Amino acid sequence: MLVLINTLVIAATDRLAVPFTACYRISNMMKKLPIQKAFTLLEPGPVVLVTTADGGKQNILTLSWTMVMDFTPRFAFLTGSWNHSYKALTKTGECVIAIPTVDLAKKTVQIGACSGAETDKFKKFKLTPLKASKVSAPLIKECYANIECRIVDHIKKHNIFVLDGLTAWIDSNRAEKRFFHAVGDGHFIADGKIINHRRIMLSKLPKGV
Amino acid sequence: MLVLINTLVIAATDRLAVPFTACYRISNMMKKLPIQKAFTLLEPGPVVLVTTADGGKQNILTLSWTMVMDFTPRFAFLTGSWNHSYKALTKTGECVIAIPTVDLAKKTVQIGACSGAETDKFKKFKLTPLKASKVSAPLIKECYANIECRIVDHIKKHNIFVLDGLTAWIDSNRAEKRFFHAVGDGHFIADGKIINHRRIMLSKLPKGV
Repeated sequence: MLVLINTLVIAATDRLAVPFTACYRISNMMKKLPIQKAFTLLEPGPVVLVTTADGGKQNILTLSWTMVMDFTPRFAFLTGSWNHSYKALTKTGECVIAIPTVDLAKKTVQIGACSGAETDKFKKFKLTPLKASKVSAPLIKECYANIECRIVDHIKKHNIFVLDGLTAWIDSNRAEKRFFHAVGDGHFIADGKIINHRRIMLSKLPKGV
Repeated sequence: MLVLINTLVIAATDRLAVPFTACYRISNMMKKLPIQKAFTLLEPGPVVLVTTADGGKQNILTLSWTMVMDFTPRFAFLTGSWNHSYKALTKTGECVIAIPTVDLAKKTVQIGACSGAETDKFKKFKLTPLKASKVSAPLIKECYANIECRIVDHIKKHNIFVLDGLTAWIDSNRAEKRFFHAVGDGHFIADGKIINHRRIMLSKLPKGV
Protein backbone atom coordinates (compact mmCIF):
# COMPACT_ATOMS: atom_id res chain seq x y z
CA MET A 1 0.00 0.00 0.00
CA LEU A 2 1.36 3.39 -0.93
CA VAL A 3 1.31 5.90 1.89
CA LEU A 4 2.51 9.48 1.71
CA ILE A 5 2.32 11.45 4.90
CA ASN A 6 3.49 15.01 4.55
CA THR A 7 7.21 14.99 4.05
CA LEU A 8 8.25 12.30 6.49
CA VAL A 9 6.95 8.81 7.15
CA ILE A 10 8.18 6.67 9.97
CA ALA A 11 6.49 3.38 9.20
CA ALA A 12 6.11 0.53 11.65
CA THR A 13 8.49 -1.43 9.50
CA ASP A 14 11.09 1.33 9.41
CA ARG A 15 14.58 0.08 9.97
CA LEU A 16 16.30 3.32 9.05
CA ALA A 17 16.72 6.66 10.65
CA VAL A 18 17.17 8.35 7.29
CA PRO A 19 14.89 11.35 6.84
CA PHE A 20 13.54 11.23 3.30
CA THR A 21 12.66 14.55 1.76
CA ALA A 22 9.43 12.96 0.58
CA CYS A 23 9.06 9.41 1.72
CA TYR A 24 6.75 6.75 0.35
CA ARG A 25 6.58 3.19 1.40
CA ILE A 26 6.97 0.75 -1.47
CA SER A 27 3.57 0.67 -3.03
CA ASN A 28 1.35 -1.77 -4.79
CA MET A 29 2.55 -0.14 -7.98
CA MET A 30 5.97 -1.61 -7.37
CA LYS A 31 5.87 -5.35 -7.67
CA LYS A 32 8.67 -7.67 -6.65
CA LEU A 33 10.46 -9.31 -9.54
CA PRO A 34 12.00 -12.67 -8.53
CA ILE A 35 15.62 -11.82 -7.83
CA GLN A 36 16.89 -14.53 -10.19
CA LYS A 37 15.27 -12.54 -13.01
CA ALA A 38 16.82 -9.19 -12.04
CA PHE A 39 19.68 -9.63 -14.51
CA THR A 40 17.16 -9.39 -17.36
CA LEU A 41 16.71 -5.71 -16.43
CA LEU A 42 20.42 -4.95 -16.78
CA GLU A 43 21.54 -7.36 -19.49
CA PRO A 44 20.21 -5.18 -22.34
CA GLY A 45 22.68 -2.51 -21.22
CA PRO A 46 20.38 0.40 -20.35
CA VAL A 47 21.49 3.66 -18.81
CA VAL A 48 20.86 3.39 -15.07
CA LEU A 49 20.56 5.69 -12.09
CA VAL A 50 22.45 4.53 -9.01
CA THR A 51 21.17 5.94 -5.73
CA THR A 52 23.06 6.14 -2.45
CA ALA A 53 22.33 7.43 1.04
CA ASP A 54 25.21 8.67 3.11
CA GLY A 55 23.59 9.33 6.45
CA GLY A 56 20.70 11.61 5.61
CA LYS A 57 22.14 12.67 2.26
CA GLN A 58 20.79 10.91 -0.78
CA ASN A 59 22.36 11.16 -4.18
CA ILE A 60 21.89 9.88 -7.73
CA LEU A 61 24.59 8.86 -10.20
CA THR A 62 23.89 8.38 -13.91
CA LEU A 63 25.80 5.35 -15.14
CA SER A 64 26.15 3.34 -18.30
CA TRP A 65 29.22 1.29 -17.39
CA THR A 66 27.50 -1.78 -16.03
CA MET A 67 27.78 -5.53 -16.62
CA VAL A 68 25.70 -8.56 -15.86
CA MET A 69 27.70 -11.40 -14.32
CA ASP A 70 26.36 -14.69 -15.61
CA PHE A 71 22.71 -15.71 -15.21
CA THR A 72 22.82 -14.52 -11.61
CA PRO A 73 21.74 -11.50 -9.55
CA ARG A 74 25.38 -10.41 -9.46
CA PHE A 75 26.36 -7.27 -11.33
CA ALA A 76 29.39 -5.09 -11.88
CA PHE A 77 29.71 -1.39 -12.51
CA LEU A 78 32.55 1.03 -12.88
CA THR A 79 32.93 4.30 -11.07
CA GLY A 80 35.63 6.08 -9.10
CA SER A 81 36.49 8.88 -6.74
CA TRP A 82 35.72 11.42 -9.48
CA ASN A 83 32.04 10.84 -8.70
CA HIS A 84 30.42 12.32 -5.59
CA SER A 85 28.57 9.02 -5.00
CA TYR A 86 31.84 7.14 -4.65
CA LYS A 87 32.23 8.06 -0.97
CA ALA A 88 28.71 6.89 -0.10
CA LEU A 89 29.19 3.66 -2.07
CA THR A 90 32.42 2.76 -0.29
CA LYS A 91 31.15 3.90 3.12
CA THR A 92 27.75 2.19 3.11
CA GLY A 93 28.42 -0.71 0.74
CA GLU A 94 24.90 -0.29 -0.57
CA CYS A 95 23.01 1.26 -3.44
CA VAL A 96 19.93 0.95 -5.59
CA ILE A 97 20.22 0.51 -9.34
CA ALA A 98 17.17 2.25 -10.78
CA ILE A 99 16.33 1.93 -14.47
CA PRO A 100 14.64 4.88 -16.15
CA THR A 101 12.56 4.63 -19.30
CA VAL A 102 12.96 6.68 -22.43
CA ASP A 103 10.61 9.46 -21.25
CA LEU A 104 13.19 10.20 -18.54
CA ALA A 105 16.15 10.30 -20.93
CA LYS A 106 16.77 14.05 -20.83
CA LYS A 107 16.41 14.18 -17.04
CA THR A 108 18.78 11.21 -16.70
CA VAL A 109 21.45 12.95 -18.78
CA GLN A 110 20.97 16.17 -16.79
CA ILE A 111 21.40 14.21 -13.54
CA GLY A 112 24.73 12.97 -14.88
CA ALA A 113 25.83 16.46 -15.85
CA CYS A 114 25.76 17.92 -12.33
CA SER A 115 27.29 16.87 -9.03
CA GLY A 116 25.66 15.76 -5.80
CA ALA A 117 28.26 17.86 -4.02
CA GLU A 118 26.29 20.98 -4.87
CA THR A 119 22.89 19.59 -5.86
CA ASP A 120 20.04 17.76 -4.13
CA LYS A 121 19.24 15.76 -7.24
CA PHE A 122 15.96 14.30 -5.99
CA LYS A 123 14.70 17.82 -5.33
CA LYS A 124 16.15 19.47 -8.43
CA PHE A 125 14.84 16.82 -10.80
CA LYS A 126 11.51 16.26 -9.01
CA LEU A 127 12.14 12.58 -8.36
CA THR A 128 10.56 10.69 -5.48
CA PRO A 129 12.68 8.54 -3.16
CA LEU A 130 10.98 5.36 -1.95
CA LYS A 131 12.24 3.58 1.12
CA ALA A 132 13.96 0.36 0.08
CA SER A 133 13.35 -2.90 1.91
CA LYS A 134 16.94 -3.98 2.56
CA VAL A 135 19.29 -1.06 1.96
CA SER A 136 19.52 2.55 3.08
CA ALA A 137 19.68 3.91 -0.48
CA PRO A 138 16.27 4.89 -1.87
CA LEU A 139 14.38 3.52 -4.83
CA ILE A 140 13.27 6.05 -7.44
CA LYS A 141 9.50 5.98 -7.79
CA GLU A 142 9.54 7.36 -11.34
CA CYS A 143 11.73 4.52 -12.65
CA TYR A 144 10.39 1.33 -14.18
CA ALA A 145 12.72 -0.90 -12.20
CA ASN A 146 14.76 -0.69 -9.02
CA ILE A 147 17.25 -3.25 -7.75
CA GLU A 148 18.43 -3.03 -4.13
CA CYS A 149 22.10 -3.99 -4.11
CA ARG A 150 24.91 -4.74 -1.68
CA ILE A 151 28.52 -4.28 -2.76
CA VAL A 152 30.42 -7.54 -2.33
CA ASP A 153 33.76 -6.57 -3.83
CA HIS A 154 35.62 -3.47 -4.96
CA ILE A 155 38.40 -4.11 -7.46
CA LYS A 156 40.24 -0.84 -6.88
CA LYS A 157 42.82 -1.49 -9.58
CA HIS A 158 40.09 -1.22 -12.19
CA ASN A 159 37.47 0.88 -10.34
CA ILE A 160 35.06 -2.04 -10.64
CA PHE A 161 32.36 -2.62 -8.02
CA VAL A 162 30.80 -6.09 -7.78
CA LEU A 163 27.28 -6.13 -6.36
CA ASP A 164 24.67 -8.65 -5.34
CA GLY A 165 21.08 -7.81 -6.17
CA LEU A 166 18.99 -8.38 -3.03
CA THR A 167 15.48 -7.38 -4.07
CA ALA A 168 14.13 -6.18 -7.41
CA TRP A 169 11.02 -4.07 -7.96
CA ILE A 170 9.18 -3.19 -11.14
CA ASP A 171 6.37 -0.74 -11.83
CA SER A 172 4.34 -2.95 -14.11
CA ASN A 173 1.52 -0.39 -14.40
CA ARG A 174 3.79 2.02 -16.23
CA ALA A 175 2.77 2.54 -19.86
CA GLU A 176 6.27 3.44 -21.09
CA LYS A 177 8.57 0.48 -20.56
CA ARG A 178 11.28 1.16 -23.14
CA PHE A 179 14.79 1.62 -21.74
CA PHE A 180 17.48 3.63 -23.47
CA HIS A 181 21.18 3.10 -24.10
CA ALA A 182 24.13 5.51 -24.13
CA VAL A 183 26.39 5.67 -27.15
CA GLY A 184 28.90 7.57 -25.04
CA ASP A 185 29.21 10.60 -27.30
CA GLY A 186 26.03 12.35 -26.17
CA HIS A 187 23.66 10.29 -28.29
CA PHE A 188 21.27 7.74 -26.83
CA ILE A 189 19.30 4.88 -28.38
CA ALA A 190 15.78 3.96 -27.32
CA ASP A 191 14.68 0.33 -27.24
CA GLY A 192 13.16 -0.73 -30.54
CA LYS A 193 11.34 -3.89 -31.57
CA ILE A 194 11.51 -7.07 -29.52
CA ILE A 195 12.79 -10.24 -31.16
CA ASN A 196 11.97 -13.65 -29.71
CA HIS A 197 14.69 -16.31 -30.06
CA ARG A 198 13.81 -18.04 -26.82
CA ARG A 199 13.42 -21.43 -28.49
CA ILE A 200 17.00 -21.39 -29.78
CA MET A 201 18.59 -20.62 -26.42
CA LEU A 202 16.16 -22.44 -24.13
CA SER A 203 18.70 -25.09 -23.17
CA LYS A 204 21.07 -22.34 -21.93
CA LEU A 205 18.55 -20.65 -19.64
CA PRO A 206 18.41 -21.41 -15.95
CA LYS A 207 15.13 -22.74 -14.56
CA GLY A 208 12.59 -20.02 -13.84
CA VAL A 209 14.08 -17.46 -16.25
CA MET B 1 41.93 -3.08 -51.17
CA LEU B 2 40.00 -6.31 -50.71
CA VAL B 3 41.67 -9.35 -52.23
CA LEU B 4 40.34 -12.88 -52.15
CA ILE B 5 42.54 -15.56 -53.67
CA ASN B 6 41.02 -19.02 -53.55
CA THR B 7 40.89 -20.08 -49.94
CA LEU B 8 44.24 -18.89 -48.70
CA VAL B 9 46.00 -15.57 -48.99
CA ILE B 10 49.51 -14.98 -47.83
CA ALA B 11 49.76 -11.22 -48.15
CA ALA B 12 52.99 -9.29 -48.13
CA THR B 13 51.91 -7.82 -44.84
CA ASP B 14 51.14 -11.18 -43.29
CA ARG B 15 52.48 -11.54 -39.82
CA LEU B 16 50.64 -14.73 -39.01
CA ALA B 17 50.96 -18.32 -40.04
CA VAL B 18 47.30 -19.00 -39.40
CA PRO B 19 45.57 -20.64 -42.37
CA PHE B 20 42.18 -18.98 -42.74
CA THR B 21 39.44 -21.11 -44.24
CA ALA B 22 38.63 -18.14 -46.44
CA CYS B 23 40.96 -15.27 -45.98
CA TYR B 24 40.42 -11.68 -46.99
CA ARG B 25 42.67 -8.80 -46.27
CA ILE B 26 40.94 -5.96 -44.48
CA SER B 27 39.17 -4.20 -47.27
CA ASN B 28 38.22 -0.71 -48.22
CA MET B 29 34.79 -1.57 -46.89
CA MET B 30 36.26 -1.71 -43.40
CA LYS B 31 37.34 1.72 -42.27
CA LYS B 32 39.38 2.42 -39.19
CA LEU B 33 37.51 4.09 -36.37
CA PRO B 34 39.83 6.17 -34.15
CA ILE B 35 40.52 3.89 -31.20
CA GLN B 36 39.45 6.53 -28.67
CA LYS B 37 35.96 6.24 -30.16
CA ALA B 38 35.79 2.43 -29.97
CA PHE B 39 33.95 2.53 -26.64
CA THR B 40 30.98 4.13 -28.43
CA LEU B 41 30.43 0.79 -30.17
CA LEU B 42 30.20 -1.14 -26.90
CA GLU B 43 28.70 1.38 -24.51
CA PRO B 44 25.12 0.85 -25.79
CA GLY B 45 25.43 -2.76 -24.58
CA PRO B 46 24.92 -4.72 -27.80
CA VAL B 47 25.26 -8.47 -28.12
CA VAL B 48 28.76 -9.16 -29.44
CA LEU B 49 30.66 -11.98 -31.08
CA VAL B 50 34.11 -12.62 -29.66
CA THR B 51 36.50 -14.39 -32.01
CA THR B 52 39.64 -16.27 -31.05
CA ALA B 53 42.32 -18.20 -32.89
CA ASP B 54 44.06 -21.01 -31.05
CA GLY B 55 46.76 -21.99 -33.51
CA GLY B 56 44.86 -22.68 -36.71
CA LYS B 57 41.53 -23.10 -34.97
CA GLN B 58 39.22 -20.13 -34.99
CA ASN B 59 36.14 -19.88 -32.86
CA ILE B 60 33.27 -17.49 -32.10
CA LEU B 61 31.64 -16.84 -28.75
CA THR B 62 28.32 -15.01 -28.43
CA LEU B 63 28.47 -12.68 -25.45
CA SER B 64 26.32 -10.07 -23.81
CA TRP B 65 28.20 -9.67 -20.55
CA THR B 66 30.44 -6.76 -21.49
CA MET B 67 31.28 -3.38 -19.95
CA VAL B 68 32.90 -0.19 -21.10
CA MET B 69 35.56 1.08 -18.71
CA ASP B 70 35.43 4.87 -18.65
CA PHE B 71 35.81 6.98 -21.82
CA THR B 72 38.73 4.78 -22.88
CA PRO B 73 39.41 1.90 -25.26
CA ARG B 74 39.47 -0.43 -22.24
CA PHE B 75 36.68 -2.97 -21.89
CA ALA B 76 35.67 -5.83 -19.64
CA PHE B 77 33.76 -9.00 -20.35
CA LEU B 78 32.82 -12.05 -18.38
CA THR B 79 33.33 -15.63 -19.44
CA GLY B 80 34.76 -18.78 -17.92
CA SER B 81 36.01 -22.28 -18.52
CA TRP B 82 32.48 -23.40 -19.41
CA ASN B 83 33.05 -21.77 -22.80
CA HIS B 84 35.22 -23.42 -25.44
CA SER B 85 36.79 -20.03 -26.28
CA TYR B 86 38.14 -19.70 -22.74
CA LYS B 87 41.23 -21.78 -23.50
CA ALA B 88 42.12 -19.73 -26.57
CA LEU B 89 41.53 -16.47 -24.70
CA THR B 90 43.82 -17.40 -21.82
CA LYS B 91 46.42 -19.00 -24.10
CA THR B 92 46.71 -16.25 -26.72
CA GLY B 93 45.64 -13.21 -24.68
CA GLU B 94 43.93 -11.88 -27.79
CA CYS B 95 40.51 -11.66 -29.36
CA VAL B 96 38.33 -9.59 -31.64
CA ILE B 97 35.05 -8.16 -30.41
CA ALA B 98 32.77 -8.12 -33.45
CA ILE B 99 29.40 -6.40 -33.31
CA PRO B 100 26.60 -7.86 -35.42
CA THR B 101 23.57 -5.90 -36.57
CA VAL B 102 19.96 -6.90 -36.14
CA ASP B 103 19.81 -8.83 -39.44
CA LEU B 104 22.30 -11.27 -37.87
CA ALA B 105 20.33 -11.70 -34.63
CA LYS B 106 19.12 -15.24 -35.26
CA LYS B 107 22.54 -16.40 -36.45
CA THR B 108 24.18 -14.77 -33.42
CA VAL B 109 21.89 -16.63 -31.02
CA GLN B 110 22.50 -19.89 -32.90
CA ILE B 111 26.28 -19.33 -32.62
CA GLY B 112 25.80 -19.05 -28.86
CA ALA B 113 23.75 -22.22 -28.70
CA CYS B 114 26.46 -24.55 -30.01
CA SER B 115 30.07 -25.23 -29.00
CA GLY B 116 33.29 -24.64 -30.88
CA ALA B 117 34.44 -27.99 -29.51
CA GLU B 118 32.30 -29.74 -32.12
CA THR B 119 31.55 -26.97 -34.61
CA ASP B 120 33.53 -24.85 -37.06
CA LYS B 121 31.31 -21.84 -36.50
CA PHE B 122 32.67 -19.74 -39.37
CA LYS B 123 31.85 -22.58 -41.76
CA LYS B 124 28.53 -23.60 -40.26
CA PHE B 125 27.19 -20.05 -40.11
CA LYS B 126 28.72 -18.90 -43.41
CA LEU B 127 30.73 -16.09 -41.83
CA THR B 128 33.93 -14.75 -43.35
CA PRO B 129 37.06 -14.35 -41.23
CA LEU B 130 39.17 -11.31 -42.09
CA LYS B 131 42.77 -11.16 -41.04
CA ALA B 132 43.19 -8.64 -38.23
CA SER B 133 46.02 -6.12 -38.20
CA LYS B 134 47.37 -6.68 -34.70
CA VAL B 135 45.98 -9.94 -33.29
CA SER B 136 45.72 -13.53 -34.44
CA ALA B 137 41.95 -13.69 -33.92
CA PRO B 138 39.97 -12.87 -37.06
CA LEU B 139 37.54 -10.05 -37.75
CA ILE B 140 34.08 -11.06 -38.97
CA LYS B 141 33.40 -9.51 -42.36
CA GLU B 142 29.62 -9.63 -41.95
CA CYS B 143 29.67 -7.55 -38.76
CA TYR B 144 29.29 -3.79 -38.68
CA ALA B 145 32.17 -3.29 -36.28
CA ASN B 146 35.26 -5.20 -35.17
CA ILE B 147 37.61 -4.26 -32.35
CA GLU B 148 40.99 -5.99 -32.13
CA CYS B 149 41.74 -6.52 -28.44
CA ARG B 150 44.52 -7.65 -26.15
CA ILE B 151 43.73 -9.05 -22.71
CA VAL B 152 45.52 -6.99 -20.05
CA ASP B 153 44.10 -8.62 -16.93
CA HIS B 154 42.10 -11.68 -15.91
CA ILE B 155 40.31 -11.36 -12.59
CA LYS B 156 39.81 -15.08 -12.03
CA LYS B 157 37.81 -14.63 -8.83
CA HIS B 158 35.01 -13.04 -10.86
CA ASN B 159 35.70 -14.50 -14.34
CA ILE B 160 36.27 -10.97 -15.61
CA PHE B 161 38.64 -10.28 -18.49
CA VAL B 162 39.97 -6.74 -18.93
CA LEU B 163 40.96 -5.84 -22.49
CA ASP B 164 42.56 -2.99 -24.36
CA GLY B 165 41.14 -2.17 -27.75
CA LEU B 166 44.03 -1.86 -30.21
CA THR B 167 42.36 -1.13 -33.53
CA ALA B 168 38.70 -0.65 -34.41
CA TRP B 169 37.09 -1.20 -37.80
CA ILE B 170 33.64 -0.33 -39.09
CA ASP B 171 31.83 -1.23 -42.29
CA SER B 172 30.32 2.15 -43.00
CA ASN B 173 28.85 1.01 -46.32
CA ARG B 174 26.48 -1.36 -44.55
CA ALA B 175 22.82 -0.31 -44.88
CA GLU B 176 21.73 -1.99 -41.64
CA LYS B 177 23.51 -0.42 -38.71
CA ARG B 178 21.16 -1.21 -35.82
CA PHE B 179 22.64 -3.33 -33.04
CA PHE B 180 20.56 -5.54 -30.77
CA HIS B 181 20.55 -6.24 -27.05
CA ALA B 182 19.93 -9.42 -25.06
CA VAL B 183 17.30 -9.47 -22.35
CA GLY B 184 18.80 -12.71 -21.09
CA ASP B 185 15.63 -14.79 -21.24
CA GLY B 186 15.71 -15.52 -24.97
CA HIS B 187 14.28 -12.17 -26.07
CA PHE B 188 16.33 -9.51 -27.80
CA ILE B 189 15.75 -5.80 -28.40
CA ALA B 190 16.72 -4.03 -31.60
CA ASP B 191 18.00 -0.47 -31.52
CA GLY B 192 15.20 2.05 -31.88
CA LYS B 193 15.23 5.79 -32.36
CA ILE B 194 18.30 7.88 -31.67
CA ILE B 195 18.08 10.71 -29.13
CA ASN B 196 20.59 13.57 -29.17
CA HIS B 197 21.52 14.99 -25.76
CA ARG B 198 25.06 15.84 -26.75
CA ARG B 199 24.71 19.46 -25.71
CA ILE B 200 23.86 18.53 -22.11
CA MET B 201 26.86 16.24 -21.62
CA LEU B 202 29.39 18.02 -23.82
CA SER B 203 31.50 19.12 -20.86
CA LYS B 204 31.87 15.45 -19.80
CA LEU B 205 33.12 14.18 -23.16
CA PRO B 206 36.81 13.76 -23.86
CA LYS B 207 38.24 15.69 -26.80
CA GLY B 208 37.67 14.03 -30.15
CA VAL B 209 34.65 11.98 -29.02
